[in-house]
Amino acid sequence: MASIQEEVKLLGVKGSPFVCRVEIALKLKGVEYKFIQENLHNKSDLLLKYNPIYKKVPVLVHNEKPLSESLVIVEYIDDAWKGNPILPAEPYQRALARFWSKFIDDKVFAAVRKAVFTIDEKERENGIEESLEALQFLENELKDKKFFGGEEFGLVDIAAIIIAFWVPIFEEVAGLQLFTSEKFPKLYNWSQEFINHPVVKESLPPREPLLGFFKGLRENLAASK
Amino acid sequence: MASIQEEVKLLGVKGSPFVCRVEIALKLKGVEYKFIQENLHNKSDLLLKYNPIYKKVPVLVHNEKPLSESLVIVEYIDDAWKGNPILPAEPYQRALARFWSKFIDDKVFAAVRKAVFTIDEKERENGIEESLEALQFLENELKDKKFFGGEEFGLVDIAAIIIAFWVPIFEEVAGLQLFTSEKFPKLYNWSQEFINHPVVKESLPPREPLLGFFKGLRENLAASK
Repeated sequence: MASIQEEVKLLGVKGSPFVCRVEIALKLKGVEYKFIQENLHNKSDLLLKYNPIYKKVPVLVHNEKPLSESLVIVEYIDDAWKGNPILPAEPYQRALARFWSKFIDDKVFAAVRKAVFTIDEKERENGIEESLEALQFLENELKDKKFFGGEEFGLVDIAAIIIAFWVPIFEEVAGLQLFTSEKFPKLYNWSQEFINHPVVKESLPPREPLLGFFKGLRENLAASK
Repeated sequence: MASIQEEVKLLGVKGSPFVCRVEIALKLKGVEYKFIQENLHNKSDLLLKYNPIYKKVPVLVHNEKPLSESLVIVEYIDDAWKGNPILPAEPYQRALARFWSKFIDDKVFAAVRKAVFTIDEKERENGIEESLEALQFLENELKDKKFFGGEEFGLVDIAAIIIAFWVPIFEEVAGLQLFTSEKFPKLYNWSQEFINHPVVKESLPPREPLLGFFKGLRENLAASK
């Protein structure tokens, strides 16, 4: 589908796991794109124009046609550029991939955020418990596969970059141990395999500044108590 | 894909908009299925076996393979049974259909629930304001199309059955006027067209018992204040 007029822009911020998902998908497909860095404290007219509903990143703009919501974008990338499939071809397997990627947002991310960035002690404990429970479902689902997608990574792996790369940073920030190799050996091995995959490695933001950023965020939260 | 062994079961409750979505999709495709009525106060072993994560309906079981999450199921039905397409074929249009159906769950339904079933006055007012704002986005998106899907209904219409059929019931229960023909003329006309479509009509639960059910729910909520 590539043509001489093909123009792909990604409005994002470096350091967002949701933006990172889109970068992994684009790099996997070998799509050239222009990264437009947004300032979320002073949103650009471009962002407000292209995502008037959520006013959030990532926004993919393909030949002037904008899309938001990271999982919607990743599926679009899979539909629009052939080769290196992100979703399985078989209907039931496709549906399971959608189910698990939604699970990562609705259950894992929601729980981890509660565990790490909540002031209320009781709420935080619930968050920890829910995180462990949700991660256990993923541990079971991984079985003995290399990736959630099988021999190659796919939609669920891309969705789960938040677990592989961001959750360990959150743990360090909060002094928590959620996602250890003892508790979740398969998921832990998967995470190492995944963040060291060449396509993923070049899509990840540098760790240290991110750690500093989230430490600051958490300190501000504690100070606002 | 139909075969002599084809077996389709739907675990559900009559009266759930999420279950109704799946029924509309199955009927549109002409798929024969067995409806298994669940009791959500006393969940069956079958439900716990097939949906151990959410323990919720709907669950579709196709040849013993279970799936949950209504929008995931509807997309699966579209992938598994050809004819009467639910999603558009063109990648960008497919992505928009996914975006808007997710918007209906994340924004419209969340806001309407807050407007109707919250005790806190301030919270309820926020819910009303957010509902009106979210419905306005849909009003704009509908443009002059008969259905969100164009001449035939599709994923967004199916997702939005909650607006066409359930929201007017919620309004009556709460004495609210959210979704009127004055405020949202296009959306209102669409809703009449949609609930009178033969496939949709035979998928809807009877209105009166549902009204009684939600009235009771809301009175219990008020009593628990």
